[in-house]
Amino acid sequence: MVYTIVFMRHGESEWNLSNRFTGWVDCKLSEKGVQEAIEGGKLIKEHGYEFDLCYTSLLKRAITTANYVLEVCDQLWIPQFRSWKLNERMYGALEGLNKRECVEKHGEKQVMEWRRSYGTPPPAMAEDSELNHAFERKYANIDGIVPMTECLKDCVERVVPFWNTEIVPALKANKRIFIAAHGNSLRALVKHLDNISEKDIVNLNIPTGIPLVYNLGEDLLPIPVEDKKYSPLTGTYLGNENEIKAKIEGVANQASKK
Amino acid sequence: MVYTIVFMRHGESEWNLSNRFTGWVDCKLSEKGVQEAIEGGKLIKEHGYEFDLCYTSLLKRAITTANYVLEVCDQLWIPQFRSWKLNERMYGALEGLNKRECVEKHGEKQVMEWRRSYGTPPPAMAEDSELNHAFERKYANIDGIVPMTECLKDCVERVVPFWNTEIVPALKANKRIFIAAHGNSLRALVKHLDNISEKDIVNLNIPTGIPLVYNLGEDLLPIPVEDKKYSPLTGTYLGNENEIKAKIEGVANQASKK
Repeated sequence: MVYTIVFMRHGESEWNLSNRFTGWVDCKLSEKGVQEAIEGGKLIKEHGYEFDLCYTSLLKRAITTANYVLEVCDQLWIPQFRSWKLNERMYGALEGLNKRECVEKHGEKQVMEWRRSYGTPPPAMAEDSELNHAFERKYANIDGIVPMTECLKDCVERVVPFWNTEIVPALKANKRIFIAAHGNSLRALVKHLDNISEKDIVNLNIPTGIPLVYNLGEDLLPIPVEDKKYSPLTGTYLGNENEIKAKIEGVANQASKK
Repeated sequence: MVYTIVFMRHGESEWNLSNRFTGWVDCKLSEKGVQEAIEGGKLIKEHGYEFDLCYTSLLKRAITTANYVLEVCDQLWIPQFRSWKLNERMYGALEGLNKRECVEKHGEKQVMEWRRSYGTPPPAMAEDSELNHAFERKYANIDGIVPMTECLKDCVERVVPFWNTEIVPALKANKRIFIAAHGNSLRALVKHLDNISEKDIVNLNIPTGIPLVYNLGEDLLPIPVEDKKYSPLTGTYLGNENEIKAKIEGVANQASKK
């Protein structure tokens, strides 16, 4: 038995467009982001993937991505489950700040540390901030405490239990799964699946809007694919190799964007 | 304790546009249908309704309607559940036929009987029809048998048990609910809620894209609202009374459309 799961990182959001730290701020996909979701859906359709279940975060950029993908591949009717555990990393006091201004204020070294270290979270969101997510109805009854900041390690610590308690039982029940989520929640997942070190995961970039397919064996370990596209992962990206490479490099260069 | 539930019939689909019997054929919303869903969402937002759960049929015109409504009122993150029991009436051998041609072929009296009688279903779908829904993956594991034709009575007999086993427990758990569904599954629901006779329900038209709000008491019986809009129902439609009237009359005149 081979279990199949397809991941997709949402496309450009309105705040990606304005180069701001987004985290849990619930902004919409930009027009380009919508187009990325549709293109991702077309790749899934072309390759004939069928799903039984879909999981998303509680953030509309992931939910909308899932809806476009499932619409394009004519599977809008499958059950969808949403969880805050698939949310993007909560970016603390950096949420809402422009990335370039942040670099000017705190220095590139400090900002890269916040963005790319595994275990150092940014400063916490102020309790009285209007962005404090504890005020939002969608987090009123979550299983856990609304975080005030997170590093990638914190994401791993919520995503991996979600994988084990929600996704694994569904896979074992032979459900073919599609997950639409975020850069950091997906890094947490592939870190777990591919047993990537803390040092290596911080340099791994997942491109937006590109379906990432994992085939897992009975032991839930990823099965390597021969014709896999450019990726240090066992999973394989669908689509054009050069476009995928360009997208991965685009993410890596975001902080230095002028 | 007052329980609140809001119903909405999906807007115009591509097949409404071409005046064909649709039933379980899974066609998309037309551009006008998308606009109706967005307008319905705006009414819900203006009136400040908040939901904890959303239910849809398995048909994309209802699912897409729900997604537009929830996007507009910023509640895309709430759980959504889908069930074939909320599907439109399965129209049997009439599915795919143009309504006017059907009148020319079978006579207006017969077509009106199929469309409007409570207990007489149209001829069954042919087993070997390419429209036979038993071939569709979305109905492979349903709780029940894929119908080959349905009258309104058949819809009532699937919708009311769904109401009792799925919706009522959710209401009693204080969940505020939004349901996006179809002309006949919603007629089945309001027949049950308002205890409408078999004779009267066949002449009742539910307008597309207009939120229909029911407040229910502890006994799950509808509580009449004083300022309710034009409607023989206890529930109240949100929006402009003349537009609602025009929409209701539009539905009633569909079969005679040239």
